[in-house]
Amino acid sequence: MKYIVQKKPLNYDGSQLQSLFAYKNFGLKGDSIIVFRGSCRVELNEMVDMEDVLAQDWIYSKDMLHFIVEHFEMDLEKTIIRQRLLIATIKEKLEELGVATLRRSGDDLYEADRKLSVSISTLSPVSTLIHCGLNVSNEGTPVPTIGLENLHVHDVLSLGESVARHYCNEVLSMRLARCKVRGVQ
Amino acid sequence: MKYIVQKKPLNYDGSQLQSLFAYKNFGLKGDSIIVFRGSCRVELNEMVDMEDVLAQDWIYSKDMLHFIVEHFEMDLEKTIIRQRLLIATIKEKLEELGVATLRRSGDDLYEADRKLSVSISTLSPVSTLIHCGLNVSNEGTPVPTIGLENLHVHDVLSLGESVARHYCNEVLSMRLARCKVRGVQ
Amino acid sequence: MKYIVQKKPLNYDGSQLQSLFAYKNFGLKGDSIIVFRGSCRVELNEMVDMEDVLAQDWIYSKDMLHFIVEHFEMDLEKTIIRQRLLIATIKEKLEELGVATLRRSGDDLYEADRKLSVSISTLSPVSTLIHCGLNVSNEGTPVPTIGLENLHVHDVLSLGESVARHYCNEVLSMRLARCKVRGVQ
Amino acid sequence: MKYIVQKKPLNYDGSQLQSLFAYKNFGLKGDSIIVFRGSCRVELNEMVDMEDVLAQDWIYSKDMLHFIVEHFEMDLEKTIIRQRLLIATIKEKLEELGVATLRRSGDDLYEADRKLSVSISTLSPVSTLIHCGLNVSNEGTPVPTIGLENLHVHDVLSLGESVARHYCNEVLSMRLARCKVRGVQ
Amino acid sequence: MKYIVQKKPLNYDGSQLQSLFAYKNFGLKGDSIIVFRGSCRVELNEMVDMEDVLAQDWIYSKDMLHFIVEHFEMDLEKTIIRQRLLIATIKEKLEELGVATLRRSGDDLYEADRKLSVSISTLSPVSTLIHCGLNVSNEGTPVPTIGLENLHVHDVLSLGESVARHYCNEVLSMRLARCKVRGVQ
Amino acid sequence: MKYIVQKKPLNYDGSQLQSLFAYKNFGLKGDSIIVFRGSCRVELNEMVDMEDVLAQDWIYSKDMLHFIVEHFEMDLEKTIIRQRLLIATIKEKLEELGVATLRRSGDDLYEADRKLSVSISTLSPVSTLIHCGLNVSNEGTPVPTIGLENLHVHDVLSLGESVARHYCNEVLSMRLARCKVRGVQ
Repeated sequence: MKYIVQKKPLNYDGSQLQSLFAYKNFGLKGDSIIVFRGSCRVELNEMVDMEDVLAQDWIYSKDMLHFIVEHFEMDLEKTIIRQRLLIATIKEKLEELGVATLRRSGDDLYEADRKLSVSISTLSPVSTLIHCGLNVSNEGTPVPTIGLENLHVHDVLSLGESVARHYCNEVLSMRLARCKVRGVQ
Repeated sequence: MKYIVQKKPLNYDGSQLQSLFAYKNFGLKGDSIIVFRGSCRVELNEMVDMEDVLAQDWIYSKDMLHFIVEHFEMDLEKTIIRQRLLIATIKEKLEELGVATLRRSGDDLYEADRKLSVSISTLSPVSTLIHCGLNVSNEGTPVPTIGLENLHVHDVLSLGESVARHYCNEVLSMRLARCKVRGVQ
Repeated sequence: MKYIVQKKPLNYDGSQLQSLFAYKNFGLKGDSIIVFRGSCRVELNEMVDMEDVLAQDWIYSKDMLHFIVEHFEMDLEKTIIRQRLLIATIKEKLEELGVATLRRSGDDLYEADRKLSVSISTLSPVSTLIHCGLNVSNEGTPVPTIGLENLHVHDVLSLGESVARHYCNEVLSMRLARCKVRGVQ
Repeated sequence: MKYIVQKKPLNYDGSQLQSLFAYKNFGLKGDSIIVFRGSCRVELNEMVDMEDVLAQDWIYSKDMLHFIVEHFEMDLEKTIIRQRLLIATIKEKLEELGVATLRRSGDDLYEADRKLSVSISTLSPVSTLIHCGLNVSNEGTPVPTIGLENLHVHDVLSLGESVARHYCNEVLSMRLARCKVRGVQ
Repeated sequence: MKYIVQKKPLNYDGSQLQSLFAYKNFGLKGDSIIVFRGSCRVELNEMVDMEDVLAQDWIYSKDMLHFIVEHFEMDLEKTIIRQRLLIATIKEKLEELGVATLRRSGDDLYEADRKLSVSISTLSPVSTLIHCGLNVSNEGTPVPTIGLENLHVHDVLSLGESVARHYCNEVLSMRLARCKVRGVQ
Repeated sequence: MKYIVQKKPLNYDGSQLQSLFAYKNFGLKGDSIIVFRGSCRVELNEMVDMEDVLAQDWIYSKDMLHFIVEHFEMDLEKTIIRQRLLIATIKEKLEELGVATLRRSGDDLYEADRKLSVSISTLSPVSTLIHCGLNVSNEGTPVPTIGLENLHVHDVLSLGESVARHYCNEVLSMRLARCKVRGVQ
């Protein structure tokens, strides 16, 4: 599993959550995580979370740190467990930066009642995919939010890289953990 | 998925990491998590982690909080991802109790270089299993450790219950998260 | 697994056999079975059974009892086995109502050579799906049929509910039956 | 999938529920169903159903019609669904012989409260397995039972063959039903 | 698994690599391999190999021997292993015809640096698919190629049939090889 | 996936075909292939191929080149396909050394009617495994055989290494081939 941090800004509109996004745009073959920064605006017809669609929620943030993860396996539940672990990892990396006030609730991060993140997992015809976005700024969001800026995290892409590197390493270590145990009765 | 907190002390010697432990001993059918407290002593011939066997490590703690998780699915890698999430959850529940000094490294929890936990996942013929133990006391352990007592957590089984309840809820919420998204291209 | 009996008539035209039908229309998250009554008219371009398409069969019934089942698993063969069990269950529930003249042939129910049912299973991008329809009336169908009316079953939705409840219970009991056996050599 | 009806009596003691039973004893390679007749006596230590073990139930019948099914797939839940379908099929084949008084409850067949059958599914290291036994005589059984003799079914092995043939055909037809549908959205 | 050799020429433009191609066109239900001869011209928007699309490669041959394989299983990696075995089989069948100069490189066959074949595997919503084409003529191809004619293979469809027959037999023999071994520790 | 060529002779008696052989003996974690040279003598009670057991065949060769492959996946059929590809690869590597007289028949290699190889695939509780042995000498074998010596291959371990390296590379290339295609309809 490999990652790329895309330095050039890229706005997320939902169309990036598609199979082979990393391969077609960055030449990464295999399981991957792409990190970039840009606004986030997903219209209802691009949403994959039917819960949001039914609630007529919409997603907007003027500046976010984005992660697009692709696993070339078809077990969506498995990728949802990975997604929760990714969120836990983001929290842990923020703790290393001195941010100790966050709590994880499922696939979301909060400071008190203000939401730091949006996240979704889904299936493509050939893979499973995760999008996670962290607010950099909390201006103009449709619900009460907190941004990385409010948490005094200024080197946003560097946070992104540290999360991506850790996630890639953990995927490998979990794969190897599977390869060193005997079965039991 | 259901849990039981066994109030009566029970010493862990490795033989509890076996299929249908919850069903045969507590009547719990289906995915389960059993919480109990007792010593931990696993001899080399009971160990399932060949890495420990090769290193001639042995596992001993005079008092631990134990979790035995069983998932009736055969994908060991998937259960290893769940195991990491369980460890992240323990850390989060300890944060709720005011313990803010832990860090997670894979399937282990540390305060500085002192280890709080042991953990392993494996396959049985009919299921996948996780054992996780948290030191209550850190006396007499073969490596530098920290115990829940040192962290001023005194209601040990209550911590265990809060972890177990949260884990059961999260397993359900992940299952349902799988059931509300459309696929993408 | 949950079910809903939709009392308001709803005509089936094939478009109901789509992922998240239960969630988007009735708010049911997870494996589900939706029961409703209405006509059945599926044009060639909506058919999923290529055997019918090749034979230029078309499906019409002016009044049917419909079941839409969704399982959030991707093994179509497994859902086809469940479909056969659903058909067997319908026959058994009709026997409880005193109808002792039916026979099951694969995924169809017949009285002598008159067909009571239509049924199909397929895959969506995120789930597997079953449609089963039972003629209420046998007027105007393109092949010789029998209807629930001819079998003196008048409380059609009540039959539907009893089938749905039984199917949900059986799915649960099969899940639990998987969780109480040891392996053999 | 193939079947063999073994004419020579063979007593069932639980050890027949093992992988490659059909191949090692009858040379049948691949998915199979073996039909034979003989007593049934399974001691506690041979039982695979921990529910029976916990309840200290034991299984005895002096004369039974036995089916041993082996599927070379590792999804136990899928084989449990097949087991239910096998039980439904036995009921249907008995209906063809004029026995109209049975009801199926999960993996059991009853006439009123008298049990006709015992059945279990489990995993071997290389396959999944089903045992189903139908009482021929109901003498001396530890619970109230009914036997095929009481139902006036005298050609017991011929019933066994008709069930086995039908089951093999249905497994094939379900496999092919999977190969003729297009996906839906 | 069954095969059909279609004697009538059929040009390949990519649209044949679709689910149920064998069933809809030739009535073959289940795993299948269809053999035919015709030109090969796949435009960029029909290509499934994103590597070719990114490289702006295009695929053209005025006369090819084509194989379309469909397996009703969803594990693409497994079908890619089968694809390599199919290519190895083509090489072996050509050796039986006295062609001893080919080498296999992944899913391609070469004589020295001249390419004999094109091949791709992909997923449909209900199956996995392989296309393999062997140049009959090497005129006008966009890269240096070799054709069956250059190898003095003139009965092209007969080669196709021998490959298809062998592949079907090998799929069956691999299935049965799975059904004759005991597990190990 | 990694390989090790063990230079020190090691006799194969069947007990090497066990899970974690590479990890416990050579420290290789993850999918692996171990190459070594030594005699081959497998007694009936160590055999995993019930076909050989039923035929009372036994396996003996005084000097063989051995491959033990382990894949940490539980789909035995998939590993059997890989096994066939391994055999095809051995044939191809021998062709590079100028040996052009072999033919592959399933998982065996022959020169005319003389057998060069033995091979088997099976399941362990945590993985799938392949053993393949190539006769170096053909003296004293229970059936007519050919040895690498007869084929003028003298650097036996070097052949082993070239096969192992190629196999590891091909496993990786097949994994990546899965990650560059879009799905089709």
